[in-house]
Amino acid sequence: MKIAVLGSGVVGETLASRLVEVGHEVRMGSRTANNEKAAAWVAKSGPRAGQGTFAAVSAWAELVISAVHGEATLAALRSTGAESLAGKVLVDVANRLDFSKGMPPVSGAHDGDSLAEQIQREFPRARVVKSLNTMNCRIMVAPQLVPGDHDVFLSGNDAAAKDVVRGILRQFGWPDANILDLGDVTTARGPENMMPMWIRVWGAFGNVPFNVHWVRAKA
Amino acid sequence: MKIAVLGSGVVGETLASRLVEVGHEVRMGSRTANNEKAAAWVAKSGPRAGQGTFAAVSAWAELVISAVHGEATLAALRSTGAESLAGKVLVDVANRLDFSKGMPPVSGAHDGDSLAEQIQREFPRARVVKSLNTMNCRIMVAPQLVPGDHDVFLSGNDAAAKDVVRGILRQFGWPDANILDLGDVTTARGPENMMPMWIRVWGAFGNVPFNVHWVRAKA
Repeated sequence: MKIAVLGSGVVGETLASRLVEVGHEVRMGSRTANNEKAAAWVAKSGPRAGQGTFAAVSAWAELVISAVHGEATLAALRSTGAESLAGKVLVDVANRLDFSKGMPPVSGAHDGDSLAEQIQREFPRARVVKSLNTMNCRIMVAPQLVPGDHDVFLSGNDAAAKDVVRGILRQFGWPDANILDLGDVTTARGPENMMPMWIRVWGAFGNVPFNVHWVRAKA
Repeated sequence: MKIAVLGSGVVGETLASRLVEVGHEVRMGSRTANNEKAAAWVAKSGPRAGQGTFAAVSAWAELVISAVHGEATLAALRSTGAESLAGKVLVDVANRLDFSKGMPPVSGAHDGDSLAEQIQREFPRARVVKSLNTMNCRIMVAPQLVPGDHDVFLSGNDAAAKDVVRGILRQFGWPDANILDLGDVTTARGPENMMPMWIRVWGAFGNVPFNVHWVRAKA
């Protein structure tokens, strides 16, 4: 599949590299063509890797993953033009985090709205799926780093789009039982609001791989 | 131990009954003396159970558990008078939830402040511990309803106060390994902000017992 990954930071690069590894054609998007980090990534990533502006890679792609900072997501998507996103699965993996007051960052999430809903409202023809924002990016692409059962979430209005994302998660190594469909795009408020807890668990556990699991009794 | 449970709703009654069961003297607090639900609870709960106003039961108690609605917590605590709380462990189990727009409720939590911090600021001599707010009250007092590992959290500035609460959690059946101390009272922002996710997981799982577990790799 032709996949655009918007963002050349550590999350974008981690996702882009793993997508190449599992067989996709991947182009990394940046504000400018020939972004230094994107060019360096292409140079080391072989013939299935490419790069370009947010607009160019989105127009080329069949599926778009937005992996820029949450505060920069809407601006990046606007620069692609709505036509480049129309009808395409658009995966939002971002969190709104304010690093301006030092560490730990302050989450901008609240239960009144979510970034995923903002994206879906502004790009109504995009098939928005929120996923993967609840963990460190190393875990996103290698869930086996955390032992036993732990979860990844899907939120979105388009069931077929969620199935496409589920397929990519399987390629990353996620077992079906740990891919939890929460419902429509408004349910993204759940995963987005986990960031304040994630930050405190990170404070308690330190820099070991960790993730969340929702445990239930038999019905 | 003499324990006041503020609140005669389902959370208050569930906690109060279990505290009596494990051997404590418990008085249920309400806005008025001889509240109907509190009186009914006392009538069925034996000689170690009592009831009274928020002020009377807090003055009597060695430890106070605030189990009124999050939106009503500060008013209830103010009615006890600061002297009744001075030096005492004050356990806050509440979530700020707005039910005015129907179900599911909307969480008032955000990463800028927490109810626990508001309580600690207004009652600086109380030894505030946030705990238990991240699950249905049936699970609070009977963790074995959910299979395997799942967690309860502690946040507070006073390590000895957290140890007291840890002791009560052990009496409820919580294994030490699943009682996670997150740190000072500001870390209550983590558990309080889990409510939006809890609500969506409840939507996905339905009315089965469930709880959260943070899974980590070996360091």
